[in-house]
Amino acid sequence: MMTSQPFERSPCPIANVLDLFGDKWTLLVVRDLLLDKTRYGEFAQSKEAIPTNILSDRLKKLEQAGVVEKKAYCDKPLRFEYELTGKGRELVPVLDAMVDWAKKHVPGSTVFPR
Amino acid sequence: MMTSQPFERSPCPIANVLDLFGDKWTLLVVRDLLLDKTRYGEFAQSKEAIPTNILSDRLKKLEQAGVVEKKAYCDKPLRFEYELTGKGRELVPVLDAMVDWAKKHVPGSTVFPR
Repeated sequence: MMTSQPFERSPCPIANVLDLFGDKWTLLVVRDLLLDKTRYGEFAQSKEAIPTNILSDRLKKLEQAGVVEKKAYCDKPLRFEYELTGKGRELVPVLDAMVDWAKKHVPGSTVFPR
Repeated sequence: MMTSQPFERSPCPIANVLDLFGDKWTLLVVRDLLLDKTRYGEFAQSKEAIPTNILSDRLKKLEQAGVVEKKAYCDKPLRFEYELTGKGRELVPVLDAMVDWAKKHVPGSTVFPR
């Protein structure tokens, strides 16, 4: 028996990417991970000032989607750090294409240094 | 005198792209325009069933951002059609990168034919 429609909206790849990453914040967390940030407090300190409830929601969703892996780095108190999986690092071309577009069309936009 | 900070959140190019396109719908309208749809009713009929209030909001925002151009194709009653500007067509590499990612990581996702 066929499983029922597995897609939230359609089989279109773009729709499926947007179902995962289509908001103002998720790809900024991915960007921070690519900039070697690993801890909750580091993400929260980024210039865009992500609200902490949104940050914790997005980290959870990224983990569920297999884009981010969470590891304990301290037992007492229990503390986690996050890193991109291979699937997550393969978002680099998406971010690169966004950077190229913005550098051309949003005057003054500047890539954050590592 | 310097103008005050012109960015919604930060000068990061990714943040600026997300300020414009960071939602579940806007890039689907861009996709439809690339698939040679031009009219409101055609966008509304796409498989993802964009709610009409969201569609009209997104078309307005895309026009304000210089990504879409609106032209009257009928005077009585007044009717418009939409097409991508050069700036809009330059989003193709962003969409292509999303398609590549989804084809690899979202099993069963299928590119819509023109």
